[in-house]
Amino acid sequence: MVQKGPGALRVTGPLSIREAKLPMTSQNRTSHIRLTSHPEPGGAAARFPIHWGAATPEERGPVIASTTNPADRNVIGAHGGSYSVYRALAISARAMNPAQRPDLTNTHPTAEILPQPQWFEPGKIVSLDPFGHRVAQDFGQWIGEGVDIRPTIAVTKARLNLPEILAAMAGHRLAADGHILHGSGDISVTKIAVDPVWHLPGIAERFGTSENLLRRTLFEQTGGMYPELVTRPDLKVFLPPIGSITAYVIGEVAAIADPGRKLACRVHDECNGSDVFGSDICTCRPYLVHGIEEAVKEAQGGGVGLIVYNRKEGRALGEVTKFLVYNARKRQEGGDSAATYFERTECVAGVQDARFQQLMPDVLHWLGVRKIDRLMSMSNMKYDAMVESGIEIGERVAIPPELIPPDASVEIEAKKAAGYYSPDGTPGDNALKSTVGRDLEKF
Amino acid sequence: MVQKGPGALRVTGPLSIREAKLPMTSQNRTSHIRLTSHPEPGGAAARFPIHWGAATPEERGPVIASTTNPADRNVIGAHGGSYSVYRALAISARAMNPAQRPDLTNTHPTAEILPQPQWFEPGKIVSLDPFGHRVAQDFGQWIGEGVDIRPTIAVTKARLNLPEILAAMAGHRLAADGHILHGSGDISVTKIAVDPVWHLPGIAERFGTSENLLRRTLFEQTGGMYPELVTRPDLKVFLPPIGSITAYVIGEVAAIADPGRKLACRVHDECNGSDVFGSDICTCRPYLVHGIEEAVKEAQGGGVGLIVYNRKEGRALGEVTKFLVYNARKRQEGGDSAATYFERTECVAGVQDARFQQLMPDVLHWLGVRKIDRLMSMSNMKYDAMVESGIEIGERVAIPPELIPPDASVEIEAKKAAGYYSPDGTPGDNALKSTVGRDLEKF
Repeated sequence: MVQKGPGALRVTGPLSIREAKLPMTSQNRTSHIRLTSHPEPGGAAARFPIHWGAATPEERGPVIASTTNPADRNVIGAHGGSYSVYRALAISARAMNPAQRPDLTNTHPTAEILPQPQWFEPGKIVSLDPFGHRVAQDFGQWIGEGVDIRPTIAVTKARLNLPEILAAMAGHRLAADGHILHGSGDISVTKIAVDPVWHLPGIAERFGTSENLLRRTLFEQTGGMYPELVTRPDLKVFLPPIGSITAYVIGEVAAIADPGRKLACRVHDECNGSDVFGSDICTCRPYLVHGIEEAVKEAQGGGVGLIVYNRKEGRALGEVTKFLVYNARKRQEGGDSAATYFERTECVAGVQDARFQQLMPDVLHWLGVRKIDRLMSMSNMKYDAMVESGIEIGERVAIPPELIPPDASVEIEAKKAAGYYSPDGTPGDNALKSTVGRDLEKF
Repeated sequence: MVQKGPGALRVTGPLSIREAKLPMTSQNRTSHIRLTSHPEPGGAAARFPIHWGAATPEERGPVIASTTNPADRNVIGAHGGSYSVYRALAISARAMNPAQRPDLTNTHPTAEILPQPQWFEPGKIVSLDPFGHRVAQDFGQWIGEGVDIRPTIAVTKARLNLPEILAAMAGHRLAADGHILHGSGDISVTKIAVDPVWHLPGIAERFGTSENLLRRTLFEQTGGMYPELVTRPDLKVFLPPIGSITAYVIGEVAAIADPGRKLACRVHDECNGSDVFGSDICTCRPYLVHGIEEAVKEAQGGGVGLIVYNRKEGRALGEVTKFLVYNARKRQEGGDSAATYFERTECVAGVQDARFQQLMPDVLHWLGVRKIDRLMSMSNMKYDAMVESGIEIGERVAIPPELIPPDASVEIEAKKAAGYYSPDGTPGDNALKSTVGRDLEKF
């Protein structure tokens, strides 16, 4: 049975309230459940308004997704993307006190990432919070007063050791300098994790739709996730339950925004099967590692290297769909062929690609990128998204042919035919038809 | 303004309905939005009831998460986990017709995964759909009649090529047999992608809580995701927006359930920084690759190897939290030390670990695992979860010391002290205090 109360919908019946009492979570337990919220005069959004794109963190305002102080919330969604579901399990298992706040002592960035003009250019950054790494500094006082403000970006240092880089050193393509690349093969990097923070009006603009329709589609196509998408038009910011972005900087972070320093960059979309397991049906890991090698060279030459890793498995269709498509490709009449590469994906997924590079440039603008001297990517979609967002591209670096695994020729030829950059032009129909992959029986 | 209509909450006002009209999506557009649904006599759950654990797919019933025929839905959530958000973007961009159904022609599994007794043992499998790979076969007629039933599991073949395996061959630890391991270094595998399908009563039991409290906590701690968690107690199945599982089988899939064949297994939780980029602060990729090497040996010896990869980045706390913890560890007084390894995580995250291995054994039971002869994992949490779920463990294989990166000794010693299996026992307090990692200035 459902009753409507001031500013919230209350449900009773399905839950035994007595059962729902948990001392540990008392701060978060009330005698009713809010199914969704509605704009309230003097409510959260009014108390902590977010002015997206404002010049200072104070004017912009903090992103507050608190589950312990719902009254302070000024966004839709939860911190940690998909991992908010695991946090809920931790609390269900009584292993975690939902009232506990992160102790941010010593967590501040290892490298300064200072405000860039792009942070304040209207519509330039809509899918991450430019101030997300600075909350402890910028909003320390409010945090001290008990407002639950959390970072959405973290910046740390790491040493990377990759067998392919050791091979590049053995093959004299790379040499240790003791600073960027060490004798051990270790690469010194700054790495940055970025959780998604979506400014819905800006996202709608990128996808050429209205904010209302975007909100409604997000709600309906996810099977009813976050009713506040439709009930809270006053809340403009959404933290979607999707994977994060990781940026690896080789060389000085500050050099990325310096027009006088060269930038080599690869923007890579996750492919777990190749990136981790070395599956030979695509060029993902080989191209990624080539990008890292080129990034090291650029940094050693006085420039800087940047690798961006996006959690967009299987063209953002997920791995189940990806594997279904593999089977459909391998089993179709005539076998796996470059000529029908995209067609099979569309039959199974309803779309050839769901990555939509429109949001990808945001992290580049956040880091102050104005031009990329060497882009280690053949994707026309990535190239177009960068150029349309105002980034100048110098050289486009194709994957060296010797790095293409035998069975991956189907993918790469099909992509060239679909508009991927290639120094040797677009393959003809015969080339496409004659490019066939391994038969399922030959695995 | 909100009105209550039969079986659904309707909202008007914030959305201009005229604007919400989209021919392409007409099938999915009505003059109102359901904020959430409520049990309806003769509704979806009644038309396609799910009897979890039933002996046949027909009795069990299909999982239906259709967004185009909401009336058919018998679960909470959406297909594709987090990727349902990208599907919504694809539709917002008018690049995808939401009414399109997957064409499952030729997508069926490359290896038979037949029903195992475990599929029907009460409470044995609660976080995936055992019939998820067979929907085209089992529910083909309903699909033909227009019911939107989709696979949640896909089974395909692959060839893996890993530099570390080539090195193992060069070092004569592995030799090609032309069948499992090829002269090129390729490993032939069957790989399986598994999307999460949660039976909420079973999940609650695993976490020692009530179903009502689990539903309420999932809803509240995600900031109000899926109100049906609380309004639809009649819907027992939830497709959460989290990452999938990938299982790699080296050798015959059927051998996994054969008590007469040996099984070598590693269950690995995602660590993108190490698995892909070779970050040296942990042992993740080295241990994973060691697991693959041992899996190949077992298969070559007539047994079978199994690697399970779970999307649980940073102990299921996500990468932003992980990087914040790295900084707190490195900057604390006395530097990064095994003695304070878990403490720092708890300060920042509120919990040491959110992976909760309680659900992990499900995929093993689905494959018919009764015993693991060689377990390439030192985790006591994984070991305990397996044993408690009825899996017998033979040998526990520690990571070879020479594979532990220098800076990862902090992690491995801290974990040993916390209960990780180690052939050389538990380190003492002095050993813990004296195990310190690289200083932030030395990266």
